Amino acid sequence: MSYQYRLDFKVRDYECDLQGIVNNAVYQNYLEHCRHEFLLDRGVDFAALSRDGINLVVVRAELDYKRSLTSQDEFYIGLNMSMMDRVRFVFEQSVIRQSDSTLCLQARIVATALNERGRPKIPKGFIEQLTP
Amino acid sequence: MSYQYRLDFKVRDYECDLQGIVNNAVYQNYLEHCRHEFLLDRGVDFAALSRDGINLVVVRAELDYKRSLTSQDEFYIGLNMSMMDRVRFVFEQSVIRQSDSTLCLQARIVATALNERGRPKIPKGFIEQLTP
Amino acid sequence: MSYQYRLDFKVRDYECDLQGIVNNAVYQNYLEHCRHEFLLDRGVDFAALSRDGINLVVVRAELDYKRSLTSQDEFYIGLNMSMMDRVRFVFEQSVIRQSDSTLCLQARIVATALNERGRPKIPKGFIEQLTP
Amino acid sequence: MSYQYRLDFKVRDYECDLQGIVNNAVYQNYLEHCRHEFLLDRGVDFAALSRDGINLVVVRAELDYKRSLTSQDEFYIGLNMSMMDRVRFVFEQSVIRQSDSTLCLQARIVATALNERGRPKIPKGFIEQLTP
Repeated sequence: MSYQYRLDFKVRDYECDLQGIVNNAVYQNYLEHCRHEFLLDRGVDFAALSRDGINLVVVRAELDYKRSLTSQDEFYIGLNMSMMDRVRFVFEQSVIRQSDSTLCLQARIVATALNERGRPKIPKGFIEQLTP
Repeated sequence: MSYQYRLDFKVRDYECDLQGIVNNAVYQNYLEHCRHEFLLDRGVDFAALSRDGINLVVVRAELDYKRSLTSQDEFYIGLNMSMMDRVRFVFEQSVIRQSDSTLCLQARIVATALNERGRPKIPKGFIEQLTP
Repeated sequence: MSYQYRLDFKVRDYECDLQGIVNNAVYQNYLEHCRHEFLLDRGVDFAALSRDGINLVVVRAELDYKRSLTSQDEFYIGLNMSMMDRVRFVFEQSVIRQSDSTLCLQARIVATALNERGRPKIPKGFIEQLTP
Repeated sequence: MSYQYRLDFKVRDYECDLQGIVNNAVYQNYLEHCRHEFLLDRGVDFAALSRDGINLVVVRAELDYKRSLTSQDEFYIGLNMSMMDRVRFVFEQSVIRQSDSTLCLQARIVATALNERGRPKIPKGFIEQLTP
């Protein structure tokens, strides 16, 4: 697989729940962190946009849980982004365990940008910065 | 709408992120807590099952984010559960803000039960306990 | 014991870690939520203060872990607040398990209020609102 | 300062709360992860010990919050460990911002090891592995 961006992680014990595996919700933390690092790498600062009244928001998340990550697992997230239509973009994200290249989670995240009145508003130059 | 189960919540400030709204991942915490309380209400104890080597796991989550919850919002989650096939069950869950009955998030969670070897294994009587 | 404020909780499974007990860090979430609900009950809105450039911040936390909470435990937090000096206040907070009134955690949280330049700044009327 | 162990981190946006800074409770996550990585580096596996019925637990945490970390901050935690008495050990941990070497948090964490009956029980060779 080829990715526009890739980020390495290691499971932290506090992310595991009483089943001894990474809790379902934590994968969304991982995915968000990967997206924000990707944006930053392309010159888009999520926190600064938020202070300027532009909120990047997720409108739909589809998560397929394939295998569980557990204590000490090292993994990476591969990311590809594309435009879905004029105001929505899609992140395809794969969570891959390092030791055996197993796909643990496949995610499809649809997002948009909202202005202070909650209307879709893509910042100027945004798409040019982010898409290949 | 009519629900098999319903649970009340209030947003806690630490669940809000730097956008001042409940972080995306936190909704999965809410949804999980609601499912576990529903199971418990029907006599199924998630933590006890886990200790007995039976893990209830999410295999797919579809989350449609409609409106954001924020500091101090009160809301409830309505839940309906049904069988998808012999080994998978589906939870339809709606996150509803109390003040104006706005639908904030609609979720469809597909889950199954795995034994210690990772094979689908629905505990005896499980379906009878849970479905209407 | 007599408390100025008291809030009821129930452990949520996602708050438990791979030891099967509530993770250490989660108690700080509980304690913060209790403080913010206490403040709100006295007419002080943490989130609104933050938007106005006044940040209530913790400067020191002392946490004595006595017993572990686990899945399904119901508990309450009792809170007493007093002034430590002109700019610092102290919250004494006890986490008590409902079933047997066991003290699970005793906390002493020292906090202050900072203005936008990071200087201690207690909002007018603040102390009168909060102390008995 | 000289440390027995040191671990690098970067703030993730989901760790920031509505004040736009890392939430107080999250520092305990950071500190725990650093301790577990230190233990692992010395051949002690927290998760494996837990499966064997030996639980390393925090009995007291003292946290002095000096400066706030925020979105994108890089930092490291320096750790020194020593025995407090025959069954308790102390971790001195400093959270240091990379950009200007500012001390953001100073922590003193007292921990012990408990067997399945909740009695202090230091695993054999444990102290020799961990102390210099």
